[in-house]
Amino acid sequence: MAKARKQKKPDHLKRILDALEANKLAQVREILAALHPADVAHALEGLTPEPRVTVWAQVDVRQMGEVLLELPEAVRVDLVQRMDDEALIAAARTLDTDDIADLIPDLSDEVIAEILSALDKQDRQRLGSVLSYPEDTAGGLMNVDAVTVRENITLEVVLRYLRRRGELPEHTNQLFVVDRGDRVVGALPVARLLTTETRARVSRVMERDVVKFATLAPDKDVAAAFENYNLISAPVVDDNNRLLGRITVDDVVDVIRALADRQVMAPAGLSEEQDIFAPVARSTRQRAMWLGVNLVTAFIASWVIGLFEQTIEKVVAVAVLMPIVASMGGNAGTQTLTLVVRGLAMGTISESNARRVLTRELMIGAVNGLIWALVVALVTVLWFHHWLLGMLIGVAMIINLVFAALSGVLIPLLLRKFGVDPALASAVILTTVTDVIGFFAFLGLATLFLI
Amino acid sequence: MAKARKQKKPDHLKRILDALEANKLAQVREILAALHPADVAHALEGLTPEPRVTVWAQVDVRQMGEVLLELPEAVRVDLVQRMDDEALIAAARTLDTDDIADLIPDLSDEVIAEILSALDKQDRQRLGSVLSYPEDTAGGLMNVDAVTVRENITLEVVLRYLRRRGELPEHTNQLFVVDRGDRVVGALPVARLLTTETRARVSRVMERDVVKFATLAPDKDVAAAFENYNLISAPVVDDNNRLLGRITVDDVVDVIRALADRQVMAPAGLSEEQDIFAPVARSTRQRAMWLGVNLVTAFIASWVIGLFEQTIEKVVAVAVLMPIVASMGGNAGTQTLTLVVRGLAMGTISESNARRVLTRELMIGAVNGLIWALVVALVTVLWFHHWLLGMLIGVAMIINLVFAALSGVLIPLLLRKFGVDPALASAVILTTVTDVIGFFAFLGLATLFLI
Repeated sequence: MAKARKQKKPDHLKRILDALEANKLAQVREILAALHPADVAHALEGLTPEPRVTVWAQVDVRQMGEVLLELPEAVRVDLVQRMDDEALIAAARTLDTDDIADLIPDLSDEVIAEILSALDKQDRQRLGSVLSYPEDTAGGLMNVDAVTVRENITLEVVLRYLRRRGELPEHTNQLFVVDRGDRVVGALPVARLLTTETRARVSRVMERDVVKFATLAPDKDVAAAFENYNLISAPVVDDNNRLLGRITVDDVVDVIRALADRQVMAPAGLSEEQDIFAPVARSTRQRAMWLGVNLVTAFIASWVIGLFEQTIEKVVAVAVLMPIVASMGGNAGTQTLTLVVRGLAMGTISESNARRVLTRELMIGAVNGLIWALVVALVTVLWFHHWLLGMLIGVAMIINLVFAALSGVLIPLLLRKFGVDPALASAVILTTVTDVIGFFAFLGLATLFLI
Repeated sequence: MAKARKQKKPDHLKRILDALEANKLAQVREILAALHPADVAHALEGLTPEPRVTVWAQVDVRQMGEVLLELPEAVRVDLVQRMDDEALIAAARTLDTDDIADLIPDLSDEVIAEILSALDKQDRQRLGSVLSYPEDTAGGLMNVDAVTVRENITLEVVLRYLRRRGELPEHTNQLFVVDRGDRVVGALPVARLLTTETRARVSRVMERDVVKFATLAPDKDVAAAFENYNLISAPVVDDNNRLLGRITVDDVVDVIRALADRQVMAPAGLSEEQDIFAPVARSTRQRAMWLGVNLVTAFIASWVIGLFEQTIEKVVAVAVLMPIVASMGGNAGTQTLTLVVRGLAMGTISESNARRVLTRELMIGAVNGLIWALVVALVTVLWFHHWLLGMLIGVAMIINLVFAALSGVLIPLLLRKFGVDPALASAVILTTVTDVIGFFAFLGLATLFLI
């Protein structure tokens, strides 16, 4: 990996840190100038706030725009706030209109006005059209740089047109064929343009079956279509099939990454656009909220235990053993939950098969409940020499693992029905359920049979 | 999203299920024949084993190869085992050599021999070269269909060559420029070929700075490079810079998806290639292993509690409250852990900044420990009217949240040092630590001050 190996991220960071420590800012500038904007962004992300600001000041203004685009939102907002209006406007000038659209939400009204006034009319209109759609839709993802041709011309003419035009927008693997009303009638793959005899007409060579997106199509559907049909670019059209712009695979890769990050971060109450070096006060505040929610659920579990104080006082072994029942339920439930949340996100679980998933998970829960109930019962008997206690904890385990399977399937389905992202809240609710059921079943049985 | 909306996944599945229920197999065949292989795969994934086999039998042999490639491994292996050799060989014949390579691990030796004998010599060599690299390296990812040109010819000649060649391999956004020894000296972007005057020589137009990969470069580095540099295709070279093949973005998107899936599935002890409808016995066995590991850690926590039986007997409130200390530690630690595991995977956390991450997380842990310690102490005092108990649980909370931050940073770093994937084992180890420390701190303090 000749080049890629040389450019491995940790090395940049180390070289920059070494130069910083030696106070050689000129050297930092030199290192940064030689890097790809994505690598500069990576290095900045790996720096704590203070050196980050110092290093940012060494980035060439002509590179700043591209670097900002590559940064996670939390870091970008922070750096944008530290830039004066002039630098921001200069940085924005180096970007395409569609990329400026991605920065706009982080900019002040004055800067936006200034940037708009610097654009020519066509670019201003383009920018307006991208900005008018939510960020997480096909419209928000699209670029407005599609190259179009008519179907009644020959490839010869297309080739001449392209040569006169000079430069193609990045990731142009197909030209869009439109009619007089700008409606998409097909797509001309560049590969065919290169391999078909030039006298052929576009209409004969073009693909008529084009995957198109409506402006308000959710970004996750766009990502799924790109993934399933191996697309490089696709047109975005309005309700009348009129071409508005195109989506390219590089932006879709970012969507796939962001959606995947959300699935990992959300269950821990973290946003996917984290800055690992955000000021401690800000991070503490964000995380404290989540811990507060979890504290409430922990108190609910404690309250359940509190109902059985007298049982614990008399048979203290139940206090020793009760976390086992709760924790096994939590773990088994989390397995089911992880599968279901992912299945919902990927579309492999839907209303048509949800009941079968439930049946299956209940069976797995029951069997695993039985197996581990026996093991736990055996250990309990050996440890406390108490046959009945062993039986009771076994029964409680089975009850809790069945409820865990039930909750693992139903919680994400219900959350989705109510419009809440299952990745976000499912895990907290599940462990609350498995804690409450676990403690209630075991302590309840103990109260009935041991007191 | 004209077409994409029509093709939304749940609808296929429902239509297929409806046709199955009505016992109209001809209709099932018709539906399947009209679908993209990726959509057929999706539908199969959403079916339970029995109808899945029935539906699979309705898939056209000419489509079977493509569909198999799109299935998650667990489902693919299952279907391959049910196909007779003849069908397998017929399915393989419809695929490119590089795609056959992906199926090979699931095939019997006889079938492999049969497939090999059906290939011509060049294809057999190609297949051999792809198979000789591990699946998760650049060599394993590559296709062997790169189109090459020499640098001293004119674009005119290149264009004529392509037209004579007919058809370009999918995702050909650049031709590779090689010297007489097949060494990569540059790349000719198709866009430039289309927009530059045809008398120019390749050497004048080509990019000299090409991102290349060594055969054994890990797939996650390949994915990062594609993501960062917005690549569509890139050459794979041997140690002497000789061209062996090329990697295309569609395969890289699959890698990104698989890596993301692993981050979600591994902490729950699940493999990323899950089949939500695998036979119950198999799934139960896979998950039982994981629950067994967790049971051991649960018993460790119980053993710690058991050390303090006498304390619990005398002050039963500690048994009621102890899960709060453990669970808050687990939740706070999981937040740190999630950030660090992701940072390691993305390369934003490395040796050069690990200590700073640790300092930061310890500060956040201490502050959040303090805040929630006060809240928990207050609730405890109000609930049990016991000032000292409130103070003790507060102190235990602070201790556990600091240890949680420490573990959240150190566990993934240590696992990685020992070559274990942090995503897999970090969460289990972390919750064991936070349970043990939580119970030990709270019950230990209670024993010292309340007995």
